[in-house]
Amino acid sequence: MRVAAVRPEADRFFAIEDRPEIQPGPGEVRLRMRAASLNYRDLMVAQNRYGATTPGVVPLSDGVGEVIELGAGVTRVAIGDRVSPNFFRDWIEGEPDGAKLASAFGGDIDGVLREELVVPETALVQVPKHLSDEEAASLSCAGLTAWVALFEHGKLMPGETVLIQGTGGVSVFALQFAKLAGARAIVLSSSKDKLERARKLGADHLIDRGATPDWEKEVLKLTGYRGVDHVVEVGGAGTLGRSLQAARIGGHVAVIGVLTGVTGDVPTGAILRKLLRVHGVYVGSRSQYERMNRAIEAAKLRPVVDATYRFDQANDALRALEAAQHFGKIVIKIA
Amino acid sequence: MRVAAVRPEADRFFAIEDRPEIQPGPGEVRLRMRAASLNYRDLMVAQNRYGATTPGVVPLSDGVGEVIELGAGVTRVAIGDRVSPNFFRDWIEGEPDGAKLASAFGGDIDGVLREELVVPETALVQVPKHLSDEEAASLSCAGLTAWVALFEHGKLMPGETVLIQGTGGVSVFALQFAKLAGARAIVLSSSKDKLERARKLGADHLIDRGATPDWEKEVLKLTGYRGVDHVVEVGGAGTLGRSLQAARIGGHVAVIGVLTGVTGDVPTGAILRKLLRVHGVYVGSRSQYERMNRAIEAAKLRPVVDATYRFDQANDALRALEAAQHFGKIVIKIA
Amino acid sequence: MRVAAVRPEADRFFAIEDRPEIQPGPGEVRLRMRAASLNYRDLMVAQNRYGATTPGVVPLSDGVGEVIELGAGVTRVAIGDRVSPNFFRDWIEGEPDGAKLASAFGGDIDGVLREELVVPETALVQVPKHLSDEEAASLSCAGLTAWVALFEHGKLMPGETVLIQGTGGVSVFALQFAKLAGARAIVLSSSKDKLERARKLGADHLIDRGATPDWEKEVLKLTGYRGVDHVVEVGGAGTLGRSLQAARIGGHVAVIGVLTGVTGDVPTGAILRKLLRVHGVYVGSRSQYERMNRAIEAAKLRPVVDATYRFDQANDALRALEAAQHFGKIVIKIA
Amino acid sequence: MRVAAVRPEADRFFAIEDRPEIQPGPGEVRLRMRAASLNYRDLMVAQNRYGATTPGVVPLSDGVGEVIELGAGVTRVAIGDRVSPNFFRDWIEGEPDGAKLASAFGGDIDGVLREELVVPETALVQVPKHLSDEEAASLSCAGLTAWVALFEHGKLMPGETVLIQGTGGVSVFALQFAKLAGARAIVLSSSKDKLERARKLGADHLIDRGATPDWEKEVLKLTGYRGVDHVVEVGGAGTLGRSLQAARIGGHVAVIGVLTGVTGDVPTGAILRKLLRVHGVYVGSRSQYERMNRAIEAAKLRPVVDATYRFDQANDALRALEAAQHFGKIVIKIA
Repeated sequence: MRVAAVRPEADRFFAIEDRPEIQPGPGEVRLRMRAASLNYRDLMVAQNRYGATTPGVVPLSDGVGEVIELGAGVTRVAIGDRVSPNFFRDWIEGEPDGAKLASAFGGDIDGVLREELVVPETALVQVPKHLSDEEAASLSCAGLTAWVALFEHGKLMPGETVLIQGTGGVSVFALQFAKLAGARAIVLSSSKDKLERARKLGADHLIDRGATPDWEKEVLKLTGYRGVDHVVEVGGAGTLGRSLQAARIGGHVAVIGVLTGVTGDVPTGAILRKLLRVHGVYVGSRSQYERMNRAIEAAKLRPVVDATYRFDQANDALRALEAAQHFGKIVIKIA
Repeated sequence: MRVAAVRPEADRFFAIEDRPEIQPGPGEVRLRMRAASLNYRDLMVAQNRYGATTPGVVPLSDGVGEVIELGAGVTRVAIGDRVSPNFFRDWIEGEPDGAKLASAFGGDIDGVLREELVVPETALVQVPKHLSDEEAASLSCAGLTAWVALFEHGKLMPGETVLIQGTGGVSVFALQFAKLAGARAIVLSSSKDKLERARKLGADHLIDRGATPDWEKEVLKLTGYRGVDHVVEVGGAGTLGRSLQAARIGGHVAVIGVLTGVTGDVPTGAILRKLLRVHGVYVGSRSQYERMNRAIEAAKLRPVVDATYRFDQANDALRALEAAQHFGKIVIKIA
Repeated sequence: MRVAAVRPEADRFFAIEDRPEIQPGPGEVRLRMRAASLNYRDLMVAQNRYGATTPGVVPLSDGVGEVIELGAGVTRVAIGDRVSPNFFRDWIEGEPDGAKLASAFGGDIDGVLREELVVPETALVQVPKHLSDEEAASLSCAGLTAWVALFEHGKLMPGETVLIQGTGGVSVFALQFAKLAGARAIVLSSSKDKLERARKLGADHLIDRGATPDWEKEVLKLTGYRGVDHVVEVGGAGTLGRSLQAARIGGHVAVIGVLTGVTGDVPTGAILRKLLRVHGVYVGSRSQYERMNRAIEAAKLRPVVDATYRFDQANDALRALEAAQHFGKIVIKIA
Repeated sequence: MRVAAVRPEADRFFAIEDRPEIQPGPGEVRLRMRAASLNYRDLMVAQNRYGATTPGVVPLSDGVGEVIELGAGVTRVAIGDRVSPNFFRDWIEGEPDGAKLASAFGGDIDGVLREELVVPETALVQVPKHLSDEEAASLSCAGLTAWVALFEHGKLMPGETVLIQGTGGVSVFALQFAKLAGARAIVLSSSKDKLERARKLGADHLIDRGATPDWEKEVLKLTGYRGVDHVVEVGGAGTLGRSLQAARIGGHVAVIGVLTGVTGDVPTGAILRKLLRVHGVYVGSRSQYERMNRAIEAAKLRPVVDATYRFDQANDALRALEAAQHFGKIVIKIA
């Protein structure tokens, strides 16, 4: 069985290796993996910037596969089901804790960029029927992060306004989710092309970040100087200050991203004076994943796949992510 | 100034009377009323079935008017604004209490079926620009009741399923709101025509109540025997038992209506065994009204007006409501 | 190994029988049971009034035992730990569903009135250190029900007022929990002795139900005609109507009990007109049990044990429960 | 009528001036002020570090007075009532907004350090009967801030653990509130005397900040390496980083204070990786103040007054606050 393994060298991130097959134990199932998708976190793992990375770990958290073998006692899935593992193998439901968060695929434990995966049945969700493998492989991390930010934490109501930074995986999902829930979306990007694509997905307002470095002022203007109800803050420490300014009094800032760093100068006085709720999002539980899929099925939403690579092009795929020219998700087709 | 007044006789509910004009005091404004709409409650008031009704009270809670005069110190509205009073004049925001609930137009205090209305500016909301007067007059009671049931109490999430009883004012709004928020809707009606109209508004499943007296079983079947997340329970004591059966474990039943009575045999054991949340809805506050209008504007939602009557046809309008053949709202055009 | 079994005859509810020992499988542990306690539900089970009861089922849900053997792979508990199984074996955390609720000890599955119990480690909670076995055996059903009613559903705040019906297991826990959380408690009982005992536990107001059949009016008077924030409604259909009257506008009624029946005439109009939240409670999850225990430990709260019986007096214990003269919990000491 | 006015010079913050009496207009009342209390914010105002301060503004937000004259139409209070204005004159209930937050006494508008105050009746709350004037004057800002942090935002449950920084006004209230609600409290201070006083108020764990500069590690140790449920973060940007480390996964950090500055280096990665909820607190609404007073009355809680000064010693009082040797509140007796 071929797997990718994190072995960074000058010209690559991953090696493709052959590993022995594993049998599913009691409560486990074997999947034939069909597709996987990339997140910014995978680049950090490959560059050893995401905590300490075990050399040779199998990368990627997001994938979809077909059930090809059931271990003893399995009841939640059947042979032939198309399923996806939750980002955290052991966070099934309820509140997060240290043990649950220490079970992330493609980091704490071997990930999904492989031909076959043996996984506990409890970690799996059924994939929405109307999605292709590539689309379905986009959901586990980016989709669920956007879902948790807006609905599980944000309690988004129709008519509220969401500020979305950029057009990466999480941001495009946030745009699609905001629109399917009756909200308004303001999208911020430095690319006119990407802004145009965002408009086609329903964005109500577009801000060209290059032309508008003080974009938080434009956000205030667009909202009648009230500010937005929710900020999908993917930028990290370098953008959080502006995001705090762009939020309304009593607003919600979903802290998701680390693109510009994990520490930095933050105007904490604004949190206090504006009674802001700054809430960290770190993907979510299997039950949250199931709630998201239910919404995706009801709305027949289709994730935006920017480009698809073959398994043997995994390094090219990650380089494309690093180049940051994508809109939506970069996917690897495995089988 | 002509007003309608509740003076039931053999052939009528309302009399049209002439009353002296009132000047707006400090903080008050004078409105030229343009349209009003009927709710089932107005029939109960006219039949003296809605608590004790003061003889001669001006009926109706739901209306839209144009600001034509400002009392001293008014700042929230301007001459020419098209506005609507909140159902409860004194429930501006925050939690309900006895004093706030004792200020309902067309019941506790004189209502809106009149040529002019003097009202505190604090009671008013701006009307969504894209709506006609007739559409805008539909919102105060039926619209806000559905909004509060689904979003303020129900915390509806995309992908959830809502069971909607009938096709009266509240129910049609609930259908429209459920769909704009990415939810699924099951509509129950004894009329095939109305079910067809519900389908056109986006209903995902239709149940013909005449052909399916045990409709709660059909609801369970349609939801894979899980039950619905929310029930918009407008039937009252006579339907509540079936609604409890139709809800999922941990589900939410919004108790809104009294069509079949205000007391009756209820299987309270189901509330306990299924951990149900049965939550009473009695319209809402002005700030909830404003949140609803924001959603209506974002989605460009248009209320469904079944029929429009002239001011001097007010009794005909109420008889039409009593006949219960309508789909959506019955409106009276005043000016 | 001796177990009690539900085998009702003229002069008994339970038989004491000998059953073969069971070995703990993977993930299971064997407990030496030390004490168990009775709930009203156990009487219903023994009288076949609690759904269909499997003949010979081992009764009782609430017990405490010592871990004496670990199955393969067990990590959550150690030999010698004093532990208690959650009421629902399979409701660990998260939202309830049909499968979780179908795993109640002493009903759906064999219960805890036995010398030894083999149980999955995931069902167990650690017992607060300061409690005796008898006290600790009181918590699983009655304690957790009161906890969920007030804190998980009720979001009780200091200074709020709780109306407590009677002085059975749930009610005495509700009184103790209300007081440790800074709330006020009004206790209703038909026994002057029990009211006096409630006063000693901190009850702020006492109502003699015999002398005050219209007790809801007295509750309103005691609260300045505002009504209580929470009602711990253990009476069932026969008392729910008065409870709805006793609650404040926007108040919370925890529907817990079935003492007077599972169906009855309910003034549903009050739910609507007072915007009440009527929320069913059916014990809770293991994670809720753990949160309760944490509070019990912080406050060094001691459950109230009314009387303790020997294992071979199990039928006497249940008869004492049936007589309904107890205050707090009736316990059976097993070892 | 004598008032204090912010007129900083070398040897003083405030001048005592004579101003003409004001008559209460419609809906207003005149108070004879009895006591006021100091907050750190008042020092910032006097030093022009709290936004721009209007020269001559009357300082202080927290006071208690007796109603001595009613304007036309006043119904909420009566002559002789002992009352306290809400910190924000215009934030009665509901969500905060810019207009409500721009009405803070002793900053945006003239404050309470004066012999008489004319104020809208809507801004007033009744003072708990068991409190002295000095105690009652302690509540408006420090008490309400602690209340909102723990209960309105924090939804504190019994058994949870609260980390409290220091022993100033907000912190001592947080300690008292945590204990009356059945929670555990860890108190951090650099003074052994203050830690001892905290122990007497019920603190469960004490940390000597001088001896333990890496206090977040001690907090983790004290909580079995789980972290606390709530942090009452009064330190500001300089302590926020350690507070994020001290909180449990999914924990709540109430951002209250600015003692060490309003901007600084913050490890935002921890917010994300630990799914923290960082929530700004800026005092609260009148309805929140009323809920707090209800809890204070139920528990007969007494605020901790560190020292009391006369009106003509107002500058000494503020210097004492600046010296930061107090435990609890510094009060000025006016009449």
